[in-house]
Amino acid sequence: MSASPSVNLADVQAAAARLQGLAVHTPLIESPALNERLGGRVFLKPETLQRAGAFKFRGAYNRLSQLSEDERKRGVVAFSSGNHAQGVALAARLVGCPALIVMPSDAPAVKVEATRGYGAEIRLYDRFTEDRIAIAQEIADQRGCVVVPSYDDPRIIAGQGTVGLEIVDQARALGVELDRVLSPVGGGGLVAGVSTAVKGLSPATQVWGAEPAGFDETRRSLESGQRETIDPDARSFCDALLTPVPGELTWAINSQTLSGIVAVTDAEVAEAMRYAFATLKLVVEPGGCVALTAALTGKIDLKGRTAAIILSGGNVDPDVFTQVLRGEI
Amino acid sequence: MSASPSVNLADVQAAAARLQGLAVHTPLIESPALNERLGGRVFLKPETLQRAGAFKFRGAYNRLSQLSEDERKRGVVAFSSGNHAQGVALAARLVGCPALIVMPSDAPAVKVEATRGYGAEIRLYDRFTEDRIAIAQEIADQRGCVVVPSYDDPRIIAGQGTVGLEIVDQARALGVELDRVLSPVGGGGLVAGVSTAVKGLSPATQVWGAEPAGFDETRRSLESGQRETIDPDARSFCDALLTPVPGELTWAINSQTLSGIVAVTDAEVAEAMRYAFATLKLVVEPGGCVALTAALTGKIDLKGRTAAIILSGGNVDPDVFTQVLRGEI
Repeated sequence: MSASPSVNLADVQAAAARLQGLAVHTPLIESPALNERLGGRVFLKPETLQRAGAFKFRGAYNRLSQLSEDERKRGVVAFSSGNHAQGVALAARLVGCPALIVMPSDAPAVKVEATRGYGAEIRLYDRFTEDRIAIAQEIADQRGCVVVPSYDDPRIIAGQGTVGLEIVDQARALGVELDRVLSPVGGGGLVAGVSTAVKGLSPATQVWGAEPAGFDETRRSLESGQRETIDPDARSFCDALLTPVPGELTWAINSQTLSGIVAVTDAEVAEAMRYAFATLKLVVEPGGCVALTAALTGKIDLKGRTAAIILSGGNVDPDVFTQVLRGEI
Repeated sequence: MSASPSVNLADVQAAAARLQGLAVHTPLIESPALNERLGGRVFLKPETLQRAGAFKFRGAYNRLSQLSEDERKRGVVAFSSGNHAQGVALAARLVGCPALIVMPSDAPAVKVEATRGYGAEIRLYDRFTEDRIAIAQEIADQRGCVVVPSYDDPRIIAGQGTVGLEIVDQARALGVELDRVLSPVGGGGLVAGVSTAVKGLSPATQVWGAEPAGFDETRRSLESGQRETIDPDARSFCDALLTPVPGELTWAINSQTLSGIVAVTDAEVAEAMRYAFATLKLVVEPGGCVALTAALTGKIDLKGRTAAIILSGGNVDPDVFTQVLRGEI
């Protein structure tokens, strides 16, 4: 047996209590057309409908609501391609604390604008030549403020896990025990929290992940048994999932809890986004759509199964969405 | 007092029982960003998530499930710009009956394709020179089949009313009594059913409608006290709401139940569709978005109020959606 994990079911339940009335209790929705297409009973958990358009608010608020009075005054710094940025900026506004967000200069414009809109200060950096962790740490040292990691933190993981708690509860309210839960995987915070909650409440439910091809470091790590890094030349339009290596804490959990991970290509993701638009009537961003993509392509088989698929975010630039609708991606 | 209406609360409740397990019980969702923008507590009822992408399946199935064995064998004929077409085609497939749908030749391609996809036979006509009622009646006479009107039928109205039943029930489950319910208005079937249900369960709740400018025949009828017709030169991209005159049955109800109707322009609707995309992450078709438009423009004031807004459909061609995202409409 490995050492006890950094996050357990009780931590996720405590996070749910903190988020009560603040995070949106996103619905568990069912599409007969999707059921027919996949040959199973498949629920969607649209975190696209969460505050700031992605699940990230859950972890950010769970972390920031536990700052000391003194820490809150000094403020927080975070680095993020955009969804964590918005989550932290919004959570900071709610708890009344200054936030500085380090964002890649190629982050989607909607994400940068939204983050600024919540009142955060923005510092752009070059994702290919600069080290965002070093930048954030330097700012933290200068200002004496707390760094809020986007996934490798027990309180962040616990907050994201509330998605899994709700999925199991909402399915049970419908009389359904789930065979599988499918989640996008970036740094692994969402799926680590979700799998902690799901396995805690329903040990027989399998948790599966999906990653963009080229950024399938957790998939390869599961194969090799150790944390693998990406090829620095890899590119994907799934901007929310471009992490170089699994987190330490998230890997310690995910290596124990996940049944498997599959990789999906940008073209497959774009096709799934068109399906979400045309049939589900949902706006899903590329990274938010990888688990649905895994199901639609059959890479994760849901035939004859009951399952829930997490749509983790919907923050997509209108021009990228237009390119997807036109079949240019 | 006017004569007793053709539809009452019990009819809507009976329709709900027929639809149980067949129609999607669409969620009542809440967006803190929308609440903040409007200064009230505002729920959305996304019938975009309904089977076939609009509320129309409810009325169509309620009607078709009450066909006699003999009628079911002979089949049904309907005329529709698209959403009723899909609703009837899907309901016909479920009850096992042939369906022929008379659709305008300028109906959105996605709607024509989807209707065909459910197995219906399609007959296109020119909306400006041909009379769709006459065409449908001629086919009905030739084949001896039942005409399924898109709104002016008690069983259609009762089926659409289940949207209102769910809104009141879902709001009460959250401990909320609604001040206002806002609905798109075309022929008036949805709002007639919804207002019957809402007024029956919660008499103090006001029901308001929204129509496209130029196709605001029910708004003008409420003003004059008699059924008004549209200017034949009027144009709007709200294809689902291009009705020439209020229905007889729907007018008899709506003239008694509605607190008011406002008209919104295509440009205002396009802006609301962009808001739904960017902030709500929902795909809403032009006609489905008019009630939200009325709220966002302040034409129906929700400040300090609790309200529910019906998003009645999401069947929009990708190229129209692209034009909206680009600000070309």
